[in-house]
Amino acid sequence: MASNKEEVRLFGMVQSPFASRVEITLKLKGVEYKYEEEKWGNFSDTLIKYNPVYKKVPVFVHNDKHLSESLVILEYIDETWKQNPILPSDPYKRALARLSSNFIDDKCFNGVSKAVFTLDEKEQEKSIEEIEVVLQFLENELKDKFFGGEKIGLVDISAVFIAYWIPIIQEVKGIKLFNFEKFPKLYNWSQDFNNHPIVKEKLPTRENLLAFYKVMFLQK
Amino acid sequence: MASNKEEVRLFGMVQSPFASRVEITLKLKGVEYKYEEEKWGNFSDTLIKYNPVYKKVPVFVHNDKHLSESLVILEYIDETWKQNPILPSDPYKRALARLSSNFIDDKCFNGVSKAVFTLDEKEQEKSIEEIEVVLQFLENELKDKFFGGEKIGLVDISAVFIAYWIPIIQEVKGIKLFNFEKFPKLYNWSQDFNNHPIVKEKLPTRENLLAFYKVMFLQK
Repeated sequence: MASNKEEVRLFGMVQSPFASRVEITLKLKGVEYKYEEEKWGNFSDTLIKYNPVYKKVPVFVHNDKHLSESLVILEYIDETWKQNPILPSDPYKRALARLSSNFIDDKCFNGVSKAVFTLDEKEQEKSIEEIEVVLQFLENELKDKFFGGEKIGLVDISAVFIAYWIPIIQEVKGIKLFNFEKFPKLYNWSQDFNNHPIVKEKLPTRENLLAFYKVMFLQK
Repeated sequence: MASNKEEVRLFGMVQSPFASRVEITLKLKGVEYKYEEEKWGNFSDTLIKYNPVYKKVPVFVHNDKHLSESLVILEYIDETWKQNPILPSDPYKRALARLSSNFIDDKCFNGVSKAVFTLDEKEQEKSIEEIEVVLQFLENELKDKFFGGEKIGLVDISAVFIAYWIPIIQEVKGIKLFNFEKFPKLYNWSQDFNNHPIVKEKLPTRENLLAFYKVMFLQK
């Protein structure tokens, strides 16, 4: 399916955990790609043409085909470049990995967005509770070094937002969501994950993210 | 993967388009299953045990394995019982089918929930516009009799909510979302889909759904 003469492009944004998922996956697979940095609030015409419904990064282009939505892109990459699979081969394990990734997007990502932007204290508390349900779920699920076993898999990559973004967001915002005391196994996992050579190479710097969220929270 | 001596159970609710997706898929595949009807607002302990995060139907049980979330269940069924595949084999076509199904859940289902329950006229208008974006997207995508070609596939099954539920909801609520004038190809598709012998057998009666939504909208 994948030939030598092919064009692979990723439209991302350094501060996007969703674009980061695609970069980590491509790097784990050893797929070469051209990266195009988009500007927050001023996306290129190409990005909007390729993702007219959501107008968001990441957009992934493979020859004449384009895709949006990081989890859909990740499965496409895994089915196209078979080396270093990020999904297990067993249908039930695949289903569980998809469920965990969906939980992370639905409850964790959306929950954090609500928790940090609401001015209503009760709503903030409710969002934090919802996030903790998923963090506890992941804490219980973690049986090996990574969710994918000894190697990084779909759930690890989906959870990059928890491993790297949440600690910085909670620091800027002054709320406590995720730490060693509450979720020791998950916290240790986050350290292993963030320090994995391929992940480390593809994460934005701490300074960059800190600055980005300071500006973002000031604007709201 | 699938043996003769196996237990397949589905916890559903007649009025749930998500449970209906699973029933249609099992029936298309010729997989025998035991159906357990759940009660709205009074779900069984088994259902809550198997779906503690969302506490919703459908829950699918295959021997000692259980799953929630209809789209995850559909992919599991397709990977476990290979006959009459609902997903194409080409990775890009698979990805597009997943994107369309996600759009339907995100923009159509959530959009309709917002449109029918909000008391704010502007918010209702905005939700209806969002729904129309996806209906137009699907209108443009439809190239054959079904989204799956000559046979019913993942997108058709995901869109059961559009084909059968939306016309009844808009009738009860007195709003116009989906009709032949606005979306002629999609409307014709909905007639073909609803009248497919397997789909027809598994849909709730019109009277049942009408009564359900009349009560639901009165309560709000």
